[in-house]
Amino acid sequence: MAATTPKHTEGWAAYDASGRISPFIFKRRENGENDVTIKILYCGMCHTDIHYARNEWGITMYPVVPGHEITGLITKVGTNVSGFKIGDRVGVGCLAASCLECDFCKQSEENYCEKVQFTYNGIFWDGSITYGGYSSMLVRRPHPGRPAAGRGGAAALRGGDGVQPNEAPQHAPSGDEAWVVGLGGLGHVAVKFAKAFGLHVTVISTSFRKETRPRAASAPITSSARTLDFVLDTVSAKHSLGPILNLLKVNGTLVLVGAPEAPVDLPSFPLIFGKRVVAGSLIGGMRETQEMLDLCGKHNITCDIELVKTSNINEAMNRLSRNDVRYRFVIDIAGQSKL
Amino acid sequence: MAATTPKHTEGWAAYDASGRISPFIFKRRENGENDVTIKILYCGMCHTDIHYARNEWGITMYPVVPGHEITGLITKVGTNVSGFKIGDRVGVGCLAASCLECDFCKQSEENYCEKVQFTYNGIFWDGSITYGGYSSMLVRRPHPGRPAAGRGGAAALRGGDGVQPNEAPQHAPSGDEAWVVGLGGLGHVAVKFAKAFGLHVTVISTSFRKETRPRAASAPITSSARTLDFVLDTVSAKHSLGPILNLLKVNGTLVLVGAPEAPVDLPSFPLIFGKRVVAGSLIGGMRETQEMLDLCGKHNITCDIELVKTSNINEAMNRLSRNDVRYRFVIDIAGQSKL
Repeated sequence: MAATTPKHTEGWAAYDASGRISPFIFKRRENGENDVTIKILYCGMCHTDIHYARNEWGITMYPVVPGHEITGLITKVGTNVSGFKIGDRVGVGCLAASCLECDFCKQSEENYCEKVQFTYNGIFWDGSITYGGYSSMLVRRPHPGRPAAGRGGAAALRGGDGVQPNEAPQHAPSGDEAWVVGLGGLGHVAVKFAKAFGLHVTVISTSFRKETRPRAASAPITSSARTLDFVLDTVSAKHSLGPILNLLKVNGTLVLVGAPEAPVDLPSFPLIFGKRVVAGSLIGGMRETQEMLDLCGKHNITCDIELVKTSNINEAMNRLSRNDVRYRFVIDIAGQSKL
Repeated sequence: MAATTPKHTEGWAAYDASGRISPFIFKRRENGENDVTIKILYCGMCHTDIHYARNEWGITMYPVVPGHEITGLITKVGTNVSGFKIGDRVGVGCLAASCLECDFCKQSEENYCEKVQFTYNGIFWDGSITYGGYSSMLVRRPHPGRPAAGRGGAAALRGGDGVQPNEAPQHAPSGDEAWVVGLGGLGHVAVKFAKAFGLHVTVISTSFRKETRPRAASAPITSSARTLDFVLDTVSAKHSLGPILNLLKVNGTLVLVGAPEAPVDLPSFPLIFGKRVVAGSLIGGMRETQEMLDLCGKHNITCDIELVKTSNINEAMNRLSRNDVRYRFVIDIAGQSKL
């Protein structure tokens, strides 16, 4: 096996519900024979990071090291690991561990495993709390491959060439139109996927400053009532689903992928009178996520990002709270880019 | 054609948002050659009647004569009408008119027709406002049969032998269990349908006084997390879908058929983390409703009712607001029962 894991990891954590991010030095577990060690280069900043940093979902274990949109380079490979070698560029998403035994895990829907643990604020099978990608390195048990120890983890992916979306296109629209609510980190990637699929895309946004077309090309959404089969709602703030539901045809589906801290308002009338459906969807399983990355490679789908230094994480979080980013902040963890 | 329609109809209406019901004398349209006239015997009292009487949905046109759970006897038959004769016992539900030309109407899903009009507080094709079953008689264009005049109505059904539910079992559960939220007018009929289908039924209720089994047979719903494929939510008051969603398996479905006046709370976590679905469903089309009535006849499914005099409508409405009824109030419109 390779040399032992560095004694300390440099990280950035929130310590309380103020959500303020400060340096945090901690110890990662050793690189076991089924693990790889990853030097983190970049980490995307998801709205989820803010929810956890500020304990907006009420489940934060402090200190919390956010970050589940990770790319980096393999620096160590356990003796039982195949398919990865030192120097490989890899991506790590939300999933840290799942039982690998239930029906969901067997179908590579680890994201719906009842025992799923996430890349940060989770509890790994050895009892340790997981810390995310706002840090210099990470030890991961790569997928696929059931660990010898019985229970185990999931989660390094090949080809993380740049920061990638972690939301797989699980519910592809059936028509030739895609409507996307919210033009943030998730929304703008949804738009790119839809374009790659050859769909005509319309965005529903409250941010007029994100409009790139002349105003004449935009329209109040009431003019499109009862016209759509499918809408993807990526908004992470509390909102009403009423105006969005009214866009859908009878039997149409709204898929919710954002996770507002407060319940969204679901008026029963547009739901009932249109026999409409609101469905949830949570990231993707490992197989789906690898497929999504491969698709990104094939169609050259990348995020539009704004790179930030580790010293500017708090400023970036505040701007993200105000929707002031086009479209994803990415932290230059290793400080290798010119900023 | 038969003799003209009685000059005046005796009815009971709310005149303002107090929702107080008072006598109201009005004129029905003439019995045309495509119509039947129905002497109303009984009318069920749906929570929707309260929503309209009190303008809780903000769309009431006063005076409003509620009532869309109507049974009665045919007293007049237009010359073009077939399939009905004087003395027939019939039922009338929510649907008063639909375009009969759109895809929904052609598939007998008139309930989702964009131009659908309801039995009360609707606008019929002749421009008149529709008045419901809290009244002595009704003129209806029976279904099926496209009217000669082009546009037209829908809505008398054969065999309304007693007050019947107007909620068709559109989404039959796939397993051998049915869970029903709310044990009111809709809920208790849902239970009877589920039993007729041979399902094991569990009811989620906030009303302990509706429990008939010893308390040991009841359990907090948290003990059933992630166990169900399907839940039917019949509650007509604002509530959170969170605890109900948590009962569902991954990919499970909650169907909402109640119509609370305020949006229900939809927490995104149980929706997203369980890839669950919330779907709406609005009554049934004419074909489905006739099938439902036939099914009621076959399995002897009837409502458990409490009969009230027309002089006690207000008291019954107040009790219904407090969930103080087992399980449906039915107004003895014609005063032919001993009370």
